[in-house]
Amino acid sequence: MREVAVIGVGLTKFGDRWEAGIKDLAAEAGLAALEDAKIISSEIEALYGGIMSSGRFTDQEHFAALLADQIGLKHISAVRVENACASGGSAFRLGYMAVASGMHDIVVVGGVEKMTDVTVNEATTALGGAGDQEWELSQGITFPGLYALMARRHMHDYGTTQEQLASVAVKNHGNALANKYAQFHRKITIDDVMKSKMIADPLKLLDCSSICDGAAAVVLAPMEIAKKYTDTPIKVAGSAQVGDTLRLASRDSLTGIAATRIAADKALAQAGVERKDIDLAEVHDCFTIAEVMGVEDLGFYNKGEAAKAIAEGETMIDGKLPVNTSGGLKGCGHPVGATGVKQVVEVVEQLRGDAGARQVNGAEIGLTHNVGGSGATVVVHVFRRAD
Amino acid sequence: MREVAVIGVGLTKFGDRWEAGIKDLAAEAGLAALEDAKIISSEIEALYGGIMSSGRFTDQEHFAALLADQIGLKHISAVRVENACASGGSAFRLGYMAVASGMHDIVVVGGVEKMTDVTVNEATTALGGAGDQEWELSQGITFPGLYALMARRHMHDYGTTQEQLASVAVKNHGNALANKYAQFHRKITIDDVMKSKMIADPLKLLDCSSICDGAAAVVLAPMEIAKKYTDTPIKVAGSAQVGDTLRLASRDSLTGIAATRIAADKALAQAGVERKDIDLAEVHDCFTIAEVMGVEDLGFYNKGEAAKAIAEGETMIDGKLPVNTSGGLKGCGHPVGATGVKQVVEVVEQLRGDAGARQVNGAEIGLTHNVGGSGATVVVHVFRRAD
Repeated sequence: MREVAVIGVGLTKFGDRWEAGIKDLAAEAGLAALEDAKIISSEIEALYGGIMSSGRFTDQEHFAALLADQIGLKHISAVRVENACASGGSAFRLGYMAVASGMHDIVVVGGVEKMTDVTVNEATTALGGAGDQEWELSQGITFPGLYALMARRHMHDYGTTQEQLASVAVKNHGNALANKYAQFHRKITIDDVMKSKMIADPLKLLDCSSICDGAAAVVLAPMEIAKKYTDTPIKVAGSAQVGDTLRLASRDSLTGIAATRIAADKALAQAGVERKDIDLAEVHDCFTIAEVMGVEDLGFYNKGEAAKAIAEGETMIDGKLPVNTSGGLKGCGHPVGATGVKQVVEVVEQLRGDAGARQVNGAEIGLTHNVGGSGATVVVHVFRRAD
Repeated sequence: MREVAVIGVGLTKFGDRWEAGIKDLAAEAGLAALEDAKIISSEIEALYGGIMSSGRFTDQEHFAALLADQIGLKHISAVRVENACASGGSAFRLGYMAVASGMHDIVVVGGVEKMTDVTVNEATTALGGAGDQEWELSQGITFPGLYALMARRHMHDYGTTQEQLASVAVKNHGNALANKYAQFHRKITIDDVMKSKMIADPLKLLDCSSICDGAAAVVLAPMEIAKKYTDTPIKVAGSAQVGDTLRLASRDSLTGIAATRIAADKALAQAGVERKDIDLAEVHDCFTIAEVMGVEDLGFYNKGEAAKAIAEGETMIDGKLPVNTSGGLKGCGHPVGATGVKQVVEVVEQLRGDAGARQVNGAEIGLTHNVGGSGATVVVHVFRRAD
């Protein structure tokens, strides 16, 4: 298979985008990525679009074809991918496969979600579709409730504290201050998190990522022609996707996500790099406990040791392993389908050296970790600056 | 890229499957395909599942991971694909790409839809998601209405008659009599169609495919190992997917689907076969006018000449070009996500010589044609008996 590079990236502002419909959001990010790649639409052969629940949120299915049309791509192959909150990461992996295989040369990957045109109850039902409706949601638990079960067990087994979980939110909101595309630009404290409204004990409002609108897009090309488009192509060095049961009750453990462990091993092996080589990681923090489990399952920390390390600042931008320099899902907001692609945008900007006040000094290798549901889909990618 | 073969196929009975949930349907077809391929689940590396609107129909998103779990596939890569009524065909193409590229060896492709657990109004709204919600459906037109516009214009331009359209339904219901998986086992006449209830003038009830439940699955492998599993591997000789605008109003013509023309040219060129070499075709007949336009756009007939030829029996099983030997969407029913995969199952059974009373004598090369919405996505595949 061929080497693949990211040659262009684009984002919309995340948040309550009342003025923009789903087409507008997708076009805003898509056109920004095309402009960044300095590419014209007739060069693009295929599009993979990640979106979770456009049917529930906007009545619109068949979204990839609509998006292709919206950014001026005529008669191309357009595929919508839906893997719950990992829709964006899965779409990116398909784009990678399409280019690596030689089936297509220039490919666009987009992710979008327009979540704010329905009531909170409708949004909660739609998001519940990421879990097992028959065996979980219809029994009365909510989606935050599933992560709350994991948090409770993690606290029980390892002594993880609510204040340590809160430190994830504090760090990520802090990082988001320097990201103009993030939904939230407000410094928060441990005390703010602890005093925020209880959502699913022990997870409080500020432990949860937000329902919001947004889109992200990237352009991929074979490495051998990437230099035609950009001086700083970023190589997709490793790609892995691994699944698990939708329902938590069928898993061996509540305190970690097995698919993350396996996917990380595969992606790192393909990239030929070790964990110590990773300069920064975008980790799926849909809830604060998810980032704690994420950095443990990715193998950056032993099980039960991450929360304390995060609280002590080890994963801050100037720390040992910067995590969620973009602000993560917590600080940026979590327009579901967009998130996995936005993670890629952040790592690409960091490896290009274009991350401004969020820049990790000397970043050469980065990792993205995108989780669907409570861990039934995990997508891990490893990126590095091209030689 | 490597040569790819279909080594196993499975279907459920299509129809009002009140006793079966979406998981049951998917598992029924998936396990049948695994059994047909004589394969054990641990050999399977990836799954691509086509489903259009599980969120609207069943509250369940994240369906590919659920399906993988349901048929005993642990920690594999599972991706849900949604391209409206072409979801199954798009999923098949991704499975083909995954094997052809060398990324995966053994891959399962599934398609499913569980449509009968909601009211007809809810189903109509969900299916409308295949068109452009903002610029078509929200203006008051229904999805059948879009095809009615195409039928009216075809009648105006070419003198196509309602009786000729009805002959598509009569043929396909006739073929379905010999397909035990088909929803309908009832011989109908031109008169039955003409007297059936008007849905969207000139399309009557029996011009329309049905809302129903069903699933289909196939197993793919690289040709070099396919003979380990089956004596009759069927080669995927050509694969193409092409898009267009969702909204009819932006197209150059109402009497044909440009994406079908382009996709057929590409798939046939890849396969190295000409139209006259095709022994049978499964053509997307969501409405009778769709089959007429389909065989014209595929290049089997000149524009405006197909309806007469169909009415004269040229596309019957013993005709010049057998079309929809399975019974098509009209006779089998149209559980949206399943349809594109079911088309592949039919062609594979025909090329294996296993189609029983529906068998096309000496069939060696077959074609599938799967359309999303009113033509914004078209997927064409060409299959041939392996040498």
